[in-house]
Amino acid sequence: MSASAAVAAPVQINATRLWQRLMTLAQIGATPNGGVNRQALSAEEIEAWHVMLAWAAEAGLDAFTDPAGNLFLRLAGRDATALPVLSGSHLDSQPTGGRFDGVYGVLAALEVLVSLSESGWRPQRDLIMVAWMNEEGSRFAPGMMGSEGFAHHRSMADIRAARDVDGVLAGDALDQLLHTFSELPQRPLGFPLAGYVEAHIEQGPVLEAQEKTIGVVTAIQGKKTFEVTIQGTRGHAGTLAMRERRDAVTAFARICCALDAQIGGYDDIVKFTIGRVQVLPNAPSVIAGSVSFSIDLRHPDNAILNALGNRVEAICNTEVRPCEVEVKLLVNAPSNGFDAAIQDMIEQSAATRGLPSMRLLSAAGHDARYMAPLCPSAMIFIPCRAGVSHAEHEWSEPEQVSAGANVLLDTLIQLAGE
Amino acid sequence: MSASAAVAAPVQINATRLWQRLMTLAQIGATPNGGVNRQALSAEEIEAWHVMLAWAAEAGLDAFTDPAGNLFLRLAGRDATALPVLSGSHLDSQPTGGRFDGVYGVLAALEVLVSLSESGWRPQRDLIMVAWMNEEGSRFAPGMMGSEGFAHHRSMADIRAARDVDGVLAGDALDQLLHTFSELPQRPLGFPLAGYVEAHIEQGPVLEAQEKTIGVVTAIQGKKTFEVTIQGTRGHAGTLAMRERRDAVTAFARICCALDAQIGGYDDIVKFTIGRVQVLPNAPSVIAGSVSFSIDLRHPDNAILNALGNRVEAICNTEVRPCEVEVKLLVNAPSNGFDAAIQDMIEQSAATRGLPSMRLLSAAGHDARYMAPLCPSAMIFIPCRAGVSHAEHEWSEPEQVSAGANVLLDTLIQLAGE
Repeated sequence: MSASAAVAAPVQINATRLWQRLMTLAQIGATPNGGVNRQALSAEEIEAWHVMLAWAAEAGLDAFTDPAGNLFLRLAGRDATALPVLSGSHLDSQPTGGRFDGVYGVLAALEVLVSLSESGWRPQRDLIMVAWMNEEGSRFAPGMMGSEGFAHHRSMADIRAARDVDGVLAGDALDQLLHTFSELPQRPLGFPLAGYVEAHIEQGPVLEAQEKTIGVVTAIQGKKTFEVTIQGTRGHAGTLAMRERRDAVTAFARICCALDAQIGGYDDIVKFTIGRVQVLPNAPSVIAGSVSFSIDLRHPDNAILNALGNRVEAICNTEVRPCEVEVKLLVNAPSNGFDAAIQDMIEQSAATRGLPSMRLLSAAGHDARYMAPLCPSAMIFIPCRAGVSHAEHEWSEPEQVSAGANVLLDTLIQLAGE
Repeated sequence: MSASAAVAAPVQINATRLWQRLMTLAQIGATPNGGVNRQALSAEEIEAWHVMLAWAAEAGLDAFTDPAGNLFLRLAGRDATALPVLSGSHLDSQPTGGRFDGVYGVLAALEVLVSLSESGWRPQRDLIMVAWMNEEGSRFAPGMMGSEGFAHHRSMADIRAARDVDGVLAGDALDQLLHTFSELPQRPLGFPLAGYVEAHIEQGPVLEAQEKTIGVVTAIQGKKTFEVTIQGTRGHAGTLAMRERRDAVTAFARICCALDAQIGGYDDIVKFTIGRVQVLPNAPSVIAGSVSFSIDLRHPDNAILNALGNRVEAICNTEVRPCEVEVKLLVNAPSNGFDAAIQDMIEQSAATRGLPSMRLLSAAGHDARYMAPLCPSAMIFIPCRAGVSHAEHEWSEPEQVSAGANVLLDTLIQLAGE
């Protein structure tokens, strides 16, 4: 038995401190309506890093970064040769985002590390908090840049080439961030890990409706997105006979009905959405010459997701006549199942603490999607009011916030080794 | 037999002069791509009036106007007590309009009057050319202000209250026009008429496809337009179960398919168009909260038009569930049948001149729509290349232009009394 093992691990995080820190970070990029605008690589995110680093220094945590602009804070374990355990989420928000999405998972992990540090107890493995760069993708699209870069799922050249609406390169903004924190050591991308756990608000109504405090996330449902463009022929609404028309709007309507019935109606689990429709020239007395639209298709079962995705083009081709159609696959993210052993740890922790829990699927994407292929990974959800997120009135209760962090504490202690 | 009857009426207009005058007016508001931008009550339209008045003075025609800003040029007939015959169209164009739409009918009528004036022959009735104010409605919407005002179909107060995009009142622009031409006498709106004939390019492909030079217009098809708004509920594309959604886009698609089948498929004559579709918030991962769209419905048979129009709301209500829908009727213009006797005169003139002709419906609206209830009215169409109008490359051939004017000459002579 090592000397440090004589000290017991803490059984509670400091709920008051965690809540206060959430409210402190909510002031960085605060919006008039109580939300947060703290987009990736912005001055607000840099300010948030300064605050995080001050809290880390106070607790004796090491800080480092990597070429993708991810922030890491480390509680050293007893065994420097053991692979570390990682936990966190992201500090960036939507332009009219809330006080919990992302930042909750970062601060819950920080709170675990600080509570452990204060207790004097040390796990076997290093415990590392991470704040991934640009999860939201609202400033530089698409998001998940930090975790995708870390996992070598996307090249840094590709990530750096993205531009915001003002034409600023992500690479330049990233260099500015790293220059600002040039005193921090850098580790290479993709360093080996023993495990990853991410706490997050659910961003859905299930936990609230089921009156559960803890969600044991079984998987992130797979997602495919498409951009479909229908080419018709413009014409005069008053003169062109119906049988001579190549009307892109009616072709769109037929395609939409068929896709909704055949794909959206496949089972009770699939999610099928056409959210964006662009008609040209979009004038009341002109038969539309083209319609482009988006498809967002999600399913947790990859075999079903693939089968449904493969049907999109055939359905479009059948229904589009006499117009023509082009179907482009934009995103193809398979479902990631989370580690069964960590799910059990989370469930057991909730049960021990008397917190009602349930297993559920994550409908939204998270950085954990890109960690699951690298190491045993899992997610802990807490409820958010009415399932609302990406909105200024996004809300979770203090007791839900602390419950999730306590379950994270138990899980990380188990993973990092008592 | 009166003294003037000893002179024979001319049997041809001056084709060269008519073409040259068309090209001269095309220079007023000429666009870089060969089209015309001469919108209602603009400096360009005022310049066109100056040119028209110079041509009228040269030919000994009287000029007058009315409170709606219509320009009239008169060839005095032999019988001052007989009701006059009117012919013309409009001088205003779309912002990227062509050289023929409207101005052709004005200059063809002027050419008839000038040719008659030159010949020394006088008809029994006054022959009056008219240039109606603001047919297009591109600057001040909706259009047909001059003919609607003349026909007391719309009040002058309502017409004068329209504003352009710069906030200029139509009433102020109209006062400026009338002030510029304050030397012209004004006649009251709606003075009695013996007949009205309007020459116009077809604005459709039928005459060209059928290789006919003269179109005998049987009617202007009736038109109804609607604005439909579907109210659903916004939601997250990844989380909300399909059965819980109130998706305004799929509701739109169902409505569009049903309307297209039940109304657009009613017979071979109906024209049904959804040309404008607006989705909110129009984001790929957001279930749409609302969709608004336009309906343009046309049919020459008023009973059918009304029956089809009356079905719109019921179809929307059936298909919209579980969303909600509001249907607003914006335009309700019944079909106007033209005078059978004048149609025969036009057809007979074409036959005598060896010009291939056919009867056809006007799919587009014209000022003649508002004259038909006032007096026996008719329209003469000439072909336009590929049916294109409201475009800078709108085109008719010189021989088509002169053919239509010669048929107008014959028709006006017959109506005005030899």
